Amino acid sequence: MLVLGVDPGTATTGYGLVTETDQGDLIAVDFGVISTPAGIPLADRLLALHLKLTEILQLHCPQSCAVEKLFFQRNVATAMAVGEARGVILLTLAKAGLIPFEYTPMEVKMAVAGFGAADKRQVQQMTKILLGLQELPRPDDAADALALAICHLHSARMKALTGS
Amino acid sequence: MLVLGVDPGTATTGYGLVTETDQGDLIAVDFGVISTPAGIPLADRLLALHLKLTEILQLHCPQSCAVEKLFFQRNVATAMAVGEARGVILLTLAKAGLIPFEYTPMEVKMAVAGFGAADKRQVQQMTKILLGLQELPRPDDAADALALAICHLHSARMKALTGS
Repeated sequence: MLVLGVDPGTATTGYGLVTETDQGDLIAVDFGVISTPAGIPLADRLLALHLKLTEILQLHCPQSCAVEKLFFQRNVATAMAVGEARGVILLTLAKAGLIPFEYTPMEVKMAVAGFGAADKRQVQQMTKILLGLQELPRPDDAADALALAICHLHSARMKALTGS
Repeated sequence: MLVLGVDPGTATTGYGLVTETDQGDLIAVDFGVISTPAGIPLADRLLALHLKLTEILQLHCPQSCAVEKLFFQRNVATAMAVGEARGVILLTLAKAGLIPFEYTPMEVKMAVAGFGAADKRQVQQMTKILLGLQELPRPDDAADALALAICHLHSARMKALTGS
């Protein structure tokens, strides 16, 4: 199963595509960030994010997807801005016929590093090891998106095993 | 000029279309709300909002549009949810080739009722009078959207007069 993980942001959205082989190995198929220029109107930035994400979906045709679910933001203005990007991302995924699964940062840390209090660096180290990468995945938003995809693959495997 | 005003919400988004005659009269062409069912996944609600707004745009072909800009929300979770709807609305308008103008509730109150501390009821009364309606526009979200469209028409007229 090819899974797309998405870490939402208006300026920078991370994406990561991870597949699991029949032997249970995880492979990073592609990862990176979608950046939108700061000097243009917000609606045009959101349109650029939508178009680029649509391109990625058409290129890789993932079977499933996971998006970061955030409850706690530094402030209301940040929450609104992340919400705007999240809204566009969820819509774009739904338009492509996908049902986005949502995971909190705590769930991602539990799935990837084994404990919810893991710091960013520990999660990135584990992401690198699990995907057999030579270096830490960069930039941070792409690493977060890969961790989300791994979290979703773990969750899907658990559900298959437990039949829940 | 036909202006579409949009008051964003995931559960209920208000819309209102207002045009100005050559004599300067304001006419409410259409108004109402886009409601999305509570029992379905968030991504599907956002898709329903996008599709319905696209229908309205195709039906009326407004030349300009205004969306409510909110800085203050009761809490971070509310801000995130409004942000998700706002993101989808801004994207949908940009996809239709429109450049959304954004106004704060204070700016709308100033434009419609003449003072920023006007309460909801006063704004609705003024909206009714300015549009020559027999009754207060209902529901509230549709009334807010009509007020936004009026605010944008006022603002456009001021800009034309002052050449700014």
